Amino acid sequence: MEAQFKTYPHTKVKRGNKRATYDVEQVYGILDDTWMCHLGAVVDDRPVVQPNLHWRIGNTLYIHGSSKNGLIRAAFESGQLCINVATLDGLVLARSAFHHSVNYRSVTVFGAPRWVDDPKEAKEALYALVEKTEAGRSKTVRPITDTELKATGVIALELEQVSAKVRTGPPIDDPEDMDWPVWAGVIPFEQVIGEPIQDMGESA
Amino acid sequence: MEAQFKTYPHTKVKRGNKRATYDVEQVYGILDDTWMCHLGAVVDDRPVVQPNLHWRIGNTLYIHGSSKNGLIRAAFESGQLCINVATLDGLVLARSAFHHSVNYRSVTVFGAPRWVDDPKEAKEALYALVEKTEAGRSKTVRPITDTELKATGVIALELEQVSAKVRTGPPIDDPEDMDWPVWAGVIPFEQVIGEPIQDMGESA
Repeated sequence: MEAQFKTYPHTKVKRGNKRATYDVEQVYGILDDTWMCHLGAVVDDRPVVQPNLHWRIGNTLYIHGSSKNGLIRAAFESGQLCINVATLDGLVLARSAFHHSVNYRSVTVFGAPRWVDDPKEAKEALYALVEKTEAGRSKTVRPITDTELKATGVIALELEQVSAKVRTGPPIDDPEDMDWPVWAGVIPFEQVIGEPIQDMGESA
Repeated sequence: MEAQFKTYPHTKVKRGNKRATYDVEQVYGILDDTWMCHLGAVVDDRPVVQPNLHWRIGNTLYIHGSSKNGLIRAAFESGQLCINVATLDGLVLARSAFHHSVNYRSVTVFGAPRWVDDPKEAKEALYALVEKTEAGRSKTVRPITDTELKATGVIALELEQVSAKVRTGPPIDDPEDMDWPVWAGVIPFEQVIGEPIQDMGESA
């Protein structure tokens, strides 16, 4: 059996649990395939969700942000942060309106965030984010200064309280609908990279 | 001046507020351009974030889900739901590691969710979601039955407590870095539709 994340009462997927997975390699793959995550914390007794970027080194998930950000501050004060990373892989068009669905991959992580206080870890983490844009790039950009490093809050969350949910494949229609005269199948979504737009430096 | 959402203490963007917008048409555009949203609620004193699908009719944002879903139940019990809709439009590669950024469009909505109890509104809303996949499709699929309609929880959130944040354009580097010998600019991300995969019905 492949390595699995341990389940907890709050990480065990309750609904649609046939689609649940706790497989470590699968979770890593979803995290590495995506750029955007969504953070959740409780700010002034109110749930707040914000997008952020995430990246992974080993079993640590990183994000960055400011201690002046209300959501991040609340996550540290409470010791509770939730991060969801999801990608929509396609629309699933069924023969019946009811059985329309989507294919997706979603990872949810809970835990207490940790400020990365060690400048060495912080710098390595930020360079790993630059590397995620293009391998080798961190060695070619103007390096980060100590002042810039101090101004950039790097936040780590160990991947311990983790679950994932994945849907793949065709629509699942009721047997009596299989001859309904409508196109059924999957419309895949793909994220592609467009033509790079070089900065000519005029804006600076 | 175009129509603007009223701001509240919890919707006013505090950080990076030059990128904030409360423009109604711009918010509608971001919501309509995207499929996936992220819900946040407080479940057993813990923030929880889950992906969902959203769609819009007029000034009402719809999602669907079950009253047995812990996040949705908690949102109704507390009267507090947060929905973020974000799309990543590109990587912004600067000359310095520090000034790397992303282009994005993000909408955050707060409010008390409402169960759509009226079957007529629920059916119209669900058909609008089918229409979002392909114009005209709701008239060609096998119609939803009363039993299916009852089994599908449709949830509405009025667009009142709304803010958006948008970044566009090239990197903003420090003047002294403008001659640094590295490529700088924007790598656009585009979501495209792949080749449709017709269901041959063998799985049913």
